Amino acid sequence: NINKERLFHTLSKSSEIGAIPGKGLKRLALSDEDKEMRDIFKGWCQEAGLTLRVDDFGNMYGRREGKKALPPVVLGSHLDTQPEGGRFDGILGVLLALEVVNTLNDHNMETDRPVEIVNFTNEEGARFEPPMLGSGGVAGVFDQEYVYSRKDREGHSFLEEMQRIGYKGEEENRLGDFHSFLELHIEQGPVLEEENKQIGIVEGIQGISWMGVTITGEADHAGPTPMHLRKDALMAAAEIMHNMEKKIANTEVTVTVGKISASPDTVNCVPGEVYFTVDIRSTDDQLREGAVEQARALISEVCHERQVDVETAELWETEKIDFGKGIIDAIEKSVETLGYSSRRMVSGAGHDAKYINNIGPTAMIFLPSVNGKSHVPSELTLDEDIISGANVLYQTVLALAEE
Amino acid sequence: NINKERLFHTLSKSSEIGAIPGKGLKRLALSDEDKEMRDIFKGWCQEAGLTLRVDDFGNMYGRREGKKALPPVVLGSHLDTQPEGGRFDGILGVLLALEVVNTLNDHNMETDRPVEIVNFTNEEGARFEPPMLGSGGVAGVFDQEYVYSRKDREGHSFLEEMQRIGYKGEEENRLGDFHSFLELHIEQGPVLEEENKQIGIVEGIQGISWMGVTITGEADHAGPTPMHLRKDALMAAAEIMHNMEKKIANTEVTVTVGKISASPDTVNCVPGEVYFTVDIRSTDDQLREGAVEQARALISEVCHERQVDVETAELWETEKIDFGKGIIDAIEKSVETLGYSSRRMVSGAGHDAKYINNIGPTAMIFLPSVNGKSHVPSELTLDEDIISGANVLYQTVLALAEE
Ligand SMILES: NC(=O)NCCC(=O)O
Ligand SMILES: NC(=O)NCCC(=O)O
Repeated sequence: NINKERLFHTLSKSSEIGAIPGKGLKRLALSDEDKEMRDIFKGWCQEAGLTLRVDDFGNMYGRREGKKALPPVVLGSHLDTQPEGGRFDGILGVLLALEVVNTLNDHNMETDRPVEIVNFTNEEGARFEPPMLGSGGVAGVFDQEYVYSRKDREGHSFLEEMQRIGYKGEEENRLGDFHSFLELHIEQGPVLEEENKQIGIVEGIQGISWMGVTITGEADHAGPTPMHLRKDALMAAAEIMHNMEKKIANTEVTVTVGKISASPDTVNCVPGEVYFTVDIRSTDDQLREGAVEQARALISEVCHERQVDVETAELWETEKIDFGKGIIDAIEKSVETLGYSSRRMVSGAGHDAKYINNIGPTAMIFLPSVNGKSHVPSELTLDEDIISGANVLYQTVLALAEE
Repeated sequence: NINKERLFHTLSKSSEIGAIPGKGLKRLALSDEDKEMRDIFKGWCQEAGLTLRVDDFGNMYGRREGKKALPPVVLGSHLDTQPEGGRFDGILGVLLALEVVNTLNDHNMETDRPVEIVNFTNEEGARFEPPMLGSGGVAGVFDQEYVYSRKDREGHSFLEEMQRIGYKGEEENRLGDFHSFLELHIEQGPVLEEENKQIGIVEGIQGISWMGVTITGEADHAGPTPMHLRKDALMAAAEIMHNMEKKIANTEVTVTVGKISASPDTVNCVPGEVYFTVDIRSTDDQLREGAVEQARALISEVCHERQVDVETAELWETEKIDFGKGIIDAIEKSVETLGYSSRRMVSGAGHDAKYINNIGPTAMIFLPSVNGKSHVPSELTLDEDIISGANVLYQTVLALAEE
């Protein structure tokens, strides 16, 4: 049904934007590379005859009118990447959405409902924390002021950067009433591959808590300062990290320390200050909240014992969500019609669909990740799986657009 | 004897160079701030009638001729600081050396031996690792090529930066034959203050080992990757750091992890690579070498168990040294004559005197550090202790210059 050549052309072109040899893709939200990718995507939307609009969060929408003035079927994901990210996370869902529209065009297919494809801003949260600022913005989870004032490491704000790259649009362009939202994404985990399934039908997304921890001890000279007089912020952090892994993480709760920095950060200084982040996830909100409590208690206990100060800040919290039964069933029907193997599953990663689910019927389609790898240069989803995904997406859109 | 007003004027002037409000001094070796301080010091040397020369490591020497053509008495230390350093570490020894010369001038004192004052380049090792590159260079511990090729975090080399700030001199200007080398420095530890002594007579310097550790696991998405499938480089580092503190450090061996960085360094990525440094010190070389062995074994064991790769690099190693009895006695005699309280001690920090001791008679004078603090903005040595130090230095130089 779909045009493989065209699809893999867009995928291979997009894999060049932000590419750093040996380091995957670096297409951080609202960076020059993001702008370059957005401009190319804009061109492709225009070639496909879509009407483009950009909202006040930089989210881009390409609209194909339907026969009737009904709320649209919306599909898409995000174009931004991690700092050393892969070629599929996010963008695959945008390019397959584009391919769906192009295939409708190929067949001169007129749908009852309009179809809109979308690119949400800053899904990764790698440049501006927390993730999913664009989708969270339109879903009313984050207000405009909050989103605009998020800052990257260098102190540049979301608003400044959005203006700088020329993608600040209008509030009235935000995602309006919609019939259904579909996000196709790579799984980013090992389950589909392990079980040899072609398609994941995503029923929900687990809950996520992010914490920033700042430990303030006392910087000192590494030479003449005896061990018992130190207030070493990094040794406190090491004890906390090690015990979080041993005592809090388990098969149902993941704990990740992704970012760490020490100050003054020279070989011969006892670190006086350390900052690190904690990412805690579970499909069970109670387990997650319990783990967050345990982590807080552990942090306090270790810091109290070592007589160092500590401040923890909640950076992000999102509960487990369940997608709408109607759309899940529609996806499952397409999968069955097409004869693909599949399983239902809960997503371990956050996605724009999580927030869009707050404002309308939503579900997701997952494709297998080779070795379960994601957020790394070796991220890979096989061509044949991408084609299966495109077909499922196309069939599902066709069905939903006639509802 | 000495001129307090002049002395505290130079100290207060130098405390402005590289000052960052709330963050102490940042006068990293061969930076613009180091150049500014060097230029001012050069001016002061000229005002004092000294003949200035700069060697091929950027070390600066100011010479006052003696009555006889004998090897000089040399005294000095370094002008560079840590990234958030104090106002006394290093520079106090240079400014008191200058004050000694100025006092000789005040009294029209002609000494038998020439007197040279010196500023050694990159003592701290904060910008270019390892420390004491300038003194190690002239002492033949490091060859020119090694020193020149040291790089800072941004990749700028020692040679480039020395040329850029205009302080690359000639090889023939290096420290020549000398009668004695005296370095006055702050203690940087708590001993003198605790025991209420005015002067530390330094008999030697403990041994130091620096190691760089790179752990390579696998980066992964923090969400969908179950704990048991992770190869988390940071959790491996945390286990190592915590166990080094618990099992290797003790009252005779210090262990410090001063620098750490994780990659890709975003909240939702399991770190695939971590780099950290280990600084191990002891006054007993066997204990230090044993601790280094233990650290290596611990690192291998943890990384083997977690199936992550690891590489350790030796960044620096220097053995415990003992200063020459003759100069120690000369210092002690001045201290007694002046009636100050004192104790003999071994330095916990490395100093230029450590390497200069390899090529001629050397010893050090320590002054108390308030709260034992150093390498931090709160570093403090009291005015009255500085004056005592200046007097001891002056008396000792007078004695040595007539030997
Ligand atoms: N899909 C994805 O990688 N999203 C980033 C948000 C998260 O950390 O789960
Ligand atoms: N004095 C001083 O802080 N030197 C730096 C070298 C060391 O780490 O001991």
